[in-house]
Amino acid sequence: MKLNKNGLLIVISGPSGVGKGTIRKALFEMKNHNLVYSVSMTTRKPRENEIDGVDYFFISREEFTKRIKENKFLEYAEFVGNYYGTPIDKVNEQLEKGNEVVLEIEVDGALQVRKKVNDAVFIFISPPSRKSLHERLINRNTEKIDVINERMAKAEREFKLAYKYDYIVVNDDVVNAADKIMAIIRAEHAKTQRTINNYQKMLEED
Amino acid sequence: MKLNKNGLLIVISGPSGVGKGTIRKALFEMKNHNLVYSVSMTTRKPRENEIDGVDYFFISREEFTKRIKENKFLEYAEFVGNYYGTPIDKVNEQLEKGNEVVLEIEVDGALQVRKKVNDAVFIFISPPSRKSLHERLINRNTEKIDVINERMAKAEREFKLAYKYDYIVVNDDVVNAADKIMAIIRAEHAKTQRTINNYQKMLEED
Repeated sequence: MKLNKNGLLIVISGPSGVGKGTIRKALFEMKNHNLVYSVSMTTRKPRENEIDGVDYFFISREEFTKRIKENKFLEYAEFVGNYYGTPIDKVNEQLEKGNEVVLEIEVDGALQVRKKVNDAVFIFISPPSRKSLHERLINRNTEKIDVINERMAKAEREFKLAYKYDYIVVNDDVVNAADKIMAIIRAEHAKTQRTINNYQKMLEED
Repeated sequence: MKLNKNGLLIVISGPSGVGKGTIRKALFEMKNHNLVYSVSMTTRKPRENEIDGVDYFFISREEFTKRIKENKFLEYAEFVGNYYGTPIDKVNEQLEKGNEVVLEIEVDGALQVRKKVNDAVFIFISPPSRKSLHERLINRNTEKIDVINERMAKAEREFKLAYKYDYIVVNDDVVNAADKIMAIIRAEHAKTQRTINNYQKMLEED
């Protein structure tokens, strides 16, 4: 699949509880960027205060399955009876404007994107240790022990997939991790494969 | 050739007059880095105020050719009757300490290093335009017109070799260019190929 190449597609991913959301927020709070967050589509009912088009695009199950058949998702998954997915058209729209589109998605979704898009940048967020991930899941305090154990078991499977990513960023410190991701974005833009066309154009001038 | 992998070897290169030296200085003036500049060896006589081991290692022609035979240079060249080269042992010494070693060298030298070292990072400094390079060479005011023309002709040949580098950084602004290089260094450290060993070790722990 060929996405528009004016902007960069950045996939931030990693096991549940690793701090993807916190890092993403820290990233967006940084200055001088043109990052845009890709809003997911879901069949889940909106929670209180959730706004359609901001938190999620809320659509019907019928509409979602139609979009799956039409291959309109970059990635999607079913989770506790609801669908969640990344709409290709919204992502393309932002890339065409020259924005950097950030996906913050599960490992399974990231590997779906990897198969479809060659020139996206894949960043795996790793906890500083297994123990710290376990503690984070416990401290969330919102989930029961069997849910926590299930998530740790899933994390174990996901840990083994880190080698499929371009970068591994350890979440030892949120600001530090966000800084690293910003550095990765800047560096990716300077890569020869991405700069060579403009460079050639410059050379064609007098 | 296998260099020690604790530190990173960063090769900053590009046509004469493009501002490699200025960018390198701006880079070293930045905070929180462990960059070390690789001091070259030369058979040229020291100029006034030049210090042995700081500006260059000044050695005899006999010693230099002996070192060439012993394969002790990462790259070397003869220039206006004098030899200039990057001593491998000094570079390795710094990499073993975990420092980032910065080489600021000519295009020809960079391509010699490229053939010898796989995991170094190669950055081509490009002028914002051909015209700007020409103006820079004229404004240096130290060189005669035939020397300038000769350098422009050499630059034309070197322009065509940019695709052999990992990154192309346009010197539109010195601080901006130095910032980009620092971002590249941070990003390179986060690359999966460089982090996977430590990551695996982390996973082996409880």
